[in-house]
Amino acid sequence: MTSFSTDRSYAQGLDAADQLAHFRDRFVQPGWDDVIYLNGNSLGPLPVRTQARIAEIVDQEWGVGLVRSWDKWVHLPRQAGDMLGEQLLGAASGQVIVCDSVTVNLYKLAFAALDYRSGRDVIVTDDDNFPTDRYVLEGVSAQRGCELRMIHSDIDDGVSERALAEALDDRVALVELSHVAYRSGALADMAKLTGLIHRAGALALWDLCHSVGAVPIELDGAGADLAVGCTYKYVNAGPGAPALLYVRDELQHQLRQPIWGWFGQRDQFEMGPRYDPAPGISAFLTGTPDVMGAVAVEEGARLLAEAGLPQLRAKSIALTEYLIALADSSLVPLGFAVASPRDPARRGGHVSLRHDDARQLSHALLRAGIVADYRTPDRIRLAPVPLFNSFTQVWDGMDRLRELAASKSYTDIPPEQPLVS
Amino acid sequence: MTSFSTDRSYAQGLDAADQLAHFRDRFVQPGWDDVIYLNGNSLGPLPVRTQARIAEIVDQEWGVGLVRSWDKWVHLPRQAGDMLGEQLLGAASGQVIVCDSVTVNLYKLAFAALDYRSGRDVIVTDDDNFPTDRYVLEGVSAQRGCELRMIHSDIDDGVSERALAEALDDRVALVELSHVAYRSGALADMAKLTGLIHRAGALALWDLCHSVGAVPIELDGAGADLAVGCTYKYVNAGPGAPALLYVRDELQHQLRQPIWGWFGQRDQFEMGPRYDPAPGISAFLTGTPDVMGAVAVEEGARLLAEAGLPQLRAKSIALTEYLIALADSSLVPLGFAVASPRDPARRGGHVSLRHDDARQLSHALLRAGIVADYRTPDRIRLAPVPLFNSFTQVWDGMDRLRELAASKSYTDIPPEQPLVS
Repeated sequence: MTSFSTDRSYAQGLDAADQLAHFRDRFVQPGWDDVIYLNGNSLGPLPVRTQARIAEIVDQEWGVGLVRSWDKWVHLPRQAGDMLGEQLLGAASGQVIVCDSVTVNLYKLAFAALDYRSGRDVIVTDDDNFPTDRYVLEGVSAQRGCELRMIHSDIDDGVSERALAEALDDRVALVELSHVAYRSGALADMAKLTGLIHRAGALALWDLCHSVGAVPIELDGAGADLAVGCTYKYVNAGPGAPALLYVRDELQHQLRQPIWGWFGQRDQFEMGPRYDPAPGISAFLTGTPDVMGAVAVEEGARLLAEAGLPQLRAKSIALTEYLIALADSSLVPLGFAVASPRDPARRGGHVSLRHDDARQLSHALLRAGIVADYRTPDRIRLAPVPLFNSFTQVWDGMDRLRELAASKSYTDIPPEQPLVS
Repeated sequence: MTSFSTDRSYAQGLDAADQLAHFRDRFVQPGWDDVIYLNGNSLGPLPVRTQARIAEIVDQEWGVGLVRSWDKWVHLPRQAGDMLGEQLLGAASGQVIVCDSVTVNLYKLAFAALDYRSGRDVIVTDDDNFPTDRYVLEGVSAQRGCELRMIHSDIDDGVSERALAEALDDRVALVELSHVAYRSGALADMAKLTGLIHRAGALALWDLCHSVGAVPIELDGAGADLAVGCTYKYVNAGPGAPALLYVRDELQHQLRQPIWGWFGQRDQFEMGPRYDPAPGISAFLTGTPDVMGAVAVEEGARLLAEAGLPQLRAKSIALTEYLIALADSSLVPLGFAVASPRDPARRGGHVSLRHDDARQLSHALLRAGIVADYRTPDRIRLAPVPLFNSFTQVWDGMDRLRELAASKSYTDIPPEQPLVS
């Protein structure tokens, strides 16, 4: 970005050269007058093909095919899992399923890992990890009489190798970390940290919620043991779509998840008297899967794969670098600070900005037609999504944020305005 | 049914007098040539209004509203739960949520019940309960070092009061039973059995999968403590729609479910450092809920409520009585036996027929345009659903079954033909 300029026309030039720009047409356009969506890290936009596929599932497969469609649907958790695994996660087939929520999948895997490393009684995570991760592990630790050991994480920079190393000893059964930190966007070095974890004899469980579909992931290559992740952010699978769950091949028959349901049963429809887990990754299924959600995951992954993850990542980096450059030039003088790693190799798909009035600003932003989100205590997260957003939208969004901050036209909003009405 | 006749015209007469017949138009018609669907107990048909609502959620609330729609969606688990509770379950508001699967909800409640009755170490269920119920309880018992005590259930008649009484003692923490048995359709006397369970000092957990939407339920009136149930059968909420979970008001703050997720957290979006369960039934939520599924539950419950549960039940009884009368006259001579209670007050919405070649017959039935289902070891289940099926369809279905059995035109099908391809 040698000739960087703060002019809007510079953004227009970047858009003109963008090889992925035409993918915007693959999404339903919200059609809002003058509204800019920089929140694909919270809920991804609706792909046109997904819209059609959901209608097909509802109208044809459910409405007409009725129960006979289960012949097809019963394979969806593995089929959508393989699509995610092979296209986005660097995971060979048979290691990923799509089912339940991130919360439930975290529970299943943490519980199973403790049983597997039964001589050990410590779970490690970090104090800035996403709430559901911390809460699930707190619950599992309480039930199992384990210690939940919290690494202190830098709120702007994530978990350091050194902090992790200090937390590891031969009591640690499991380390659970987010690949991309939900607040700062800090991207962990999965292979390096997994190596550290393995040297201490623990299992590594990665939360991919804020990285799947945004950054290339190599679960097999990094030697990851376990992973979970959501599909309604960068995978664009819709509100409450089922989560992914990964268990490395050779661990599958050694780990036993605690929720024994009929979809995890060998020869399920024989309905045998005792629970006998299905071979392979299917043993990590529980109850009847959400069909529409699983289909949306499959379509979402297919669309990202078509664009190409390296291409996506390159544009994502260009967008966030541009956003940071604009923040430095126009927002830092107004009391903002960049609260994400500055090295793009250490950053995921979103950027956090700190501001004392972030909570009020986030409400004012929405009023001004910018959809971003607030995160405690004083952060605004902005996610320019490569297949949906343009450089000009980033410019416009940052310009409105600048105007709001400069004019202080947010002070009418109560500082404690609820985040969800 | 004093003037009962086996003529098809008798069925046509019943249809002409049916006050609920027009509700058939409220469902998408599969439009199959000559196919009869008697499987609403497995997957309910698609209501027209649900089809429109899902399209609205996808196209407008997700596609256009994007993340802003969470202001509305965040209330869905409780809102759909109250709709179910008040309209179909006899449960005052604030006691039912819609979330996760039956399997996961069973796990949460069984685990919580064991903690609550911590001096006790036995879970009771019956040996003919639905597989996922038996498997979940087997898993929870194994984890908690408890005994899983199996009542012997009559495969055609369900759990007797006497058998339950014999299984109860002061070691029993929890009894989990199905309100309607999945195989025979036997309907349990919830109030009476709950009373027995309470006198032994245990909690009563009811599985409503095969009763919700089919028979009137009075959870509050029966003194039930806990309940789960699925919504894709008689509630017509679609494949993999989220399950219901009920916890009696005064137990909510005493029970603590084991999967501590961010949707169960007080002031969720403040993302506090420690898990602090939300007040009331919300503490039984876990992760991000399936939005489309929850909306479909709400619509499904609304449609049943519009028809009226007493009216539904009356027609359901008339349909199953008619089906049994036809079976007695034309199928019993061909080797069939009725494998459901004959007293309609002790039967849910479906009827089971026993036949030595049931598995082959079930495949042949599908080929002949009758959708019913097979259940091990030798049962065919038939569910004439009051809002969707007619008496004439019952006559036609039974007539084809008679033809198949009489002509033995199913013997080309391998006896071990897989149930799901």
